Amino acid sequence: KRSYSITLLPGDGIGPEVVSVAKDVLVLAGSFEGITFEFQEMLLGGAALDATGVPMPDETLSVSKQSDAVLLGAIGGYKWDNNEKHLKPETGLLQLRSGLQVFANLRPATVFPQLVDASTLKREVAEGVDLMVVRELTGGIYFGKPRGFRTGENGQETGFNTEIYSAHEIDRIARLAFETARKRCGKLCSVDKANVLEASMLWRKIVTELAHEYPDVELSHMYVDNAAMQLIRYPKQFDTVLTNNIFGDILSDEASMITGSIGMLPSASVGASGPGLFEPIHGSAPDIAGQDKANPFATVLSAAMLLKYGLGEERAAERIEKAVLDTLNRGFRTADIYSAGTKLVGCKQIGEEILKSV
Amino acid sequence: KRSYSITLLPGDGIGPEVVSVAKDVLVLAGSFEGITFEFQEMLLGGAALDATGVPMPDETLSVSKQSDAVLLGAIGGYKWDNNEKHLKPETGLLQLRSGLQVFANLRPATVFPQLVDASTLKREVAEGVDLMVVRELTGGIYFGKPRGFRTGENGQETGFNTEIYSAHEIDRIARLAFETARKRCGKLCSVDKANVLEASMLWRKIVTELAHEYPDVELSHMYVDNAAMQLIRYPKQFDTVLTNNIFGDILSDEASMITGSIGMLPSASVGASGPGLFEPIHGSAPDIAGQDKANPFATVLSAAMLLKYGLGEERAAERIEKAVLDTLNRGFRTADIYSAGTKLVGCKQIGEEILKSV
Ligand SMILES: CC(C)[C@H](C(=O)O)[C@@H](O)C(=O)O
Ligand SMILES: CC(C)[C@H](C(=O)O)[C@@H](O)C(=O)O
Repeated sequence: KRSYSITLLPGDGIGPEVVSVAKDVLVLAGSFEGITFEFQEMLLGGAALDATGVPMPDETLSVSKQSDAVLLGAIGGYKWDNNEKHLKPETGLLQLRSGLQVFANLRPATVFPQLVDASTLKREVAEGVDLMVVRELTGGIYFGKPRGFRTGENGQETGFNTEIYSAHEIDRIARLAFETARKRCGKLCSVDKANVLEASMLWRKIVTELAHEYPDVELSHMYVDNAAMQLIRYPKQFDTVLTNNIFGDILSDEASMITGSIGMLPSASVGASGPGLFEPIHGSAPDIAGQDKANPFATVLSAAMLLKYGLGEERAAERIEKAVLDTLNRGFRTADIYSAGTKLVGCKQIGEEILKSV
Repeated sequence: KRSYSITLLPGDGIGPEVVSVAKDVLVLAGSFEGITFEFQEMLLGGAALDATGVPMPDETLSVSKQSDAVLLGAIGGYKWDNNEKHLKPETGLLQLRSGLQVFANLRPATVFPQLVDASTLKREVAEGVDLMVVRELTGGIYFGKPRGFRTGENGQETGFNTEIYSAHEIDRIARLAFETARKRCGKLCSVDKANVLEASMLWRKIVTELAHEYPDVELSHMYVDNAAMQLIRYPKQFDTVLTNNIFGDILSDEASMITGSIGMLPSASVGASGPGLFEPIHGSAPDIAGQDKANPFATVLSAAMLLKYGLGEERAAERIEKAVLDTLNRGFRTADIYSAGTKLVGCKQIGEEILKSV
């Protein structure tokens, strides 16, 4: 019997509701495959700020590090929006990513056939979109130094950040992207701004050199402004998309909105070793928190990614993925994905329906 | 009789074809309003590289500076794609922007009713979209120092750039955005990544402070990743969008693709004084260059922006805008905007039809 320790970070807003559903699904899917879990719930984000004064308590990192995988709900809310930087929920999330050294963020953007009409794109454009954004997550302008404020020439106040990548950082994320593309359709598009930025020029150079080691993967390069257009013009041209931290932040959100149902999309953040971090891509939605209106599908699918990418438990992962599709096919919907002719239910009931299908 | 000197920079690819059409339209529209022009044609981009070895010859800048406005076609092409940075056509364009100190890039994204079906967005989402991106153009990560390559810790090669904004740079672009919003629907959305970047925190602070001077403008703030989503989800929520150089590069291209017809979209780059730079937002399209297939509408509309924002000649500008709409209404289309039931013609004939309508 295999047993895993999972750190749960419910976080803020709807986080606790969706994590609670995902936990139950994880337990049941695991039980069918001879897997047991031990859960430990820790604080992150606004919840941690309110309770401890910091957005990522040391204990949260140490417990997470000792576990086999981390499942996160969502963090943030209006309440903490005007906090100073070191007291923002977001800072806690960045500290956690950095602390766990999860340098690769995998964000699938998949259009579910049942939900294709939720996309603002025309049916023929959205239908069949199935791409994976591989975003570098622990480097670049998010973490680069120097950063801060200073009085510059003419006594002017300035704010500055550093976009910086080393060959090693690019190499490891690019390898992971090539491997990912290889397991998918074998097409990798690396996105950068190499016509302007030195950091991007090095990025393109390293990625291009690596291509020789992956002759079976078809590599292309695209400037980030063009990628932002092509995602709208013809998203099906993309299979795996590799990019840096800030461009990945923007493009993966854009890609997810193309599906029309960001409430359905999970993400996985993994490193070279140690536990991965799994979370829905949606935010904490403070305005609907505690009202049983949240869509738990994305967190449930994040639990499936946790099983697949975090624990190597493919069968349990597939069980969850099938249960999600089955629940959609049986017509159950939360408000964000509801359409005429389907059954509008709350977060908890979606959870129960998924459990029936596991 | 008013007379203006205009610098023409045809550039590369389809640039010369579209600039030639726009020049004729400018002359005719001007003649009806008692305006005459003196044109001087100069080299920029790949054309300049091939002829002089640099992408922006000193003479191009000095002639441009002495003129009343600059009309640019497009620059770049496969031929120069692997050039070193200082020998890239793009570098010439950046040098020109910087040399002219055109810190504000105005990029309208307008859905033409005649072309709404060209958008990949559903009709009800695309119809009526009419927004203006105000992008900071001479600062931020495009120009920030230090930048370059160095051997970092562990002997690792690194590439780096600096995102930096001074209070003054933010103040002047924000003022221009508030003024722009005031002349439009009075709604301004400032886009940043203030939850992560210090440069964005200063940006948000300065913009927020300025709002007191524009009580008639409704200001909101949005994170760039969310903006990339909202542009797809519900583009009509936006009127004027203010953002920095790199986010503006990405978001303005995204916004333009939402209209489905980037071959129609102009742009204006203006500074505190001195001539403005006017150019279509599309690229040089080397694959169709010299085949009379280019869409000249965007450059013609850039000439209208030149009249309006560059010379204060609103009436001549409106004449051109009306002629463009009239030509569309009479059914004339280039290949990129063709649909069944309309008349497919070449670049030159579009020019002739516009001239008939001026
Ligand atoms: C909350 C924020 C710091 C974060 C990021 O920018 O990485 C989020 O947008 C994301 O994409 O996970
Ligand atoms: C060609 C390139 C340097 C330029 C930019 O990034 O500014 C272009 O993409 C634009 O938006 O005008």
